[in-house]
Amino acid sequence: MSRLKVQSFSISLDGFAAGPDQDLEHPLGVGGPDLATWLFHTRTWKQMHVAGGDETGGGETGVDDELAAKGFENIGAWIMGRNMFGPVRGPWPDESWRGWWGEEPPYHTPVFVLTHHARAPLLMKGGTEFRFVTQGIESALAQAKEAAAGKDIRLGGGAATIRQYLRARLVDELHLPVSPVLLGQGEHLFAGLDLRALGYACTKHLRGERAAVHVFLEKQP
Amino acid sequence: MSRLKVQSFSISLDGFAAGPDQDLEHPLGVGGPDLATWLFHTRTWKQMHVAGGDETGGGETGVDDELAAKGFENIGAWIMGRNMFGPVRGPWPDESWRGWWGEEPPYHTPVFVLTHHARAPLLMKGGTEFRFVTQGIESALAQAKEAAAGKDIRLGGGAATIRQYLRARLVDELHLPVSPVLLGQGEHLFAGLDLRALGYACTKHLRGERAAVHVFLEKQP
Repeated sequence: MSRLKVQSFSISLDGFAAGPDQDLEHPLGVGGPDLATWLFHTRTWKQMHVAGGDETGGGETGVDDELAAKGFENIGAWIMGRNMFGPVRGPWPDESWRGWWGEEPPYHTPVFVLTHHARAPLLMKGGTEFRFVTQGIESALAQAKEAAAGKDIRLGGGAATIRQYLRARLVDELHLPVSPVLLGQGEHLFAGLDLRALGYACTKHLRGERAAVHVFLEKQP
Repeated sequence: MSRLKVQSFSISLDGFAAGPDQDLEHPLGVGGPDLATWLFHTRTWKQMHVAGGDETGGGETGVDDELAAKGFENIGAWIMGRNMFGPVRGPWPDESWRGWWGEEPPYHTPVFVLTHHARAPLLMKGGTEFRFVTQGIESALAQAKEAAAGKDIRLGGGAATIRQYLRARLVDELHLPVSPVLLGQGEHLFAGLDLRALGYACTKHLRGERAAVHVFLEKQP
């Protein structure tokens, strides 16, 4: 059965998933990229995002890399919030913003983007199709399930979107790399959520090569 | 020079230092003892708290134990909040409450207890003397420094007390074991504090035998 999974979603020691002052130049907010140091060194990341990366290209293997790669396995659809899709706010002024990832995004599945403003689907190279959902999180999940045809669904982010799905107890599992940095401000993943009362528990944690601690939470039956 | 140190102060994955509903039977709140699983197995803990513990007694050695022991080295005075001293609130009804720890508490130094209600000092066995400070955190620190005579001062807790000292930038370093549990509610250590703006950074972290990750924060010069 399809599971809704948060994967490789990095947070700081003080619980922030992004730094303050997000804008076009700082999509993760000021200080935000420090959260993903563990990821930027992996072979999986380099193959996806570094120009000239290929099957024999650089990047480290090991725990961090295995977890980064695992986040893309058996995924049949993605869901993300609008702010993860881009910096444009309010009604879409035109069709020019096509995501942060260029013409061939790393998703290769349908991607359901939560928004209050309707927009026609965007078919990208490599099988990624951005579909804009205005009917809310449950509708997006139902559509993603249908599109995934039995595979899992990855909930990309950002923090506000994950919090909505957690509050509704719709997330089945989370892999959260906790990076040894303090952000102090930004988007907090847990603030005001009682994860224990919502039925979540920590089922595993392990340390990667690059200082992040990979924490795994699961919704209990 | 005397440093003000937080040592072996355990928090949950979601940042809580104690569970909800603290009372006489639950001094750490409901679920709170799960935070200190790493500690309860150490030789250091067993020697201090388990009847019949002695130099050759049980308990595990290793990273967890070394850190537990280090928390008591070179300490010339302690500071703690009144709620860590006991469950009595408001004016002291009498002299009967003498701390959670019996007649020989594990401190063996002067212990400055922050309170709004004056009370005569309490001299216990083994060199522990509880002194009640009504003039606030800076006064308690000045008195502790004088008593410590060049040794360090350990800030015991609870969370509210540590938060006051952090906000005033008076804490020099913190050792925070992060336990792989979710508490959901309780006393949050970091909420509303911008540790980065206050000048703190993570300088080290390492994993203990019993699943806690030991995080070290220091005030930057």
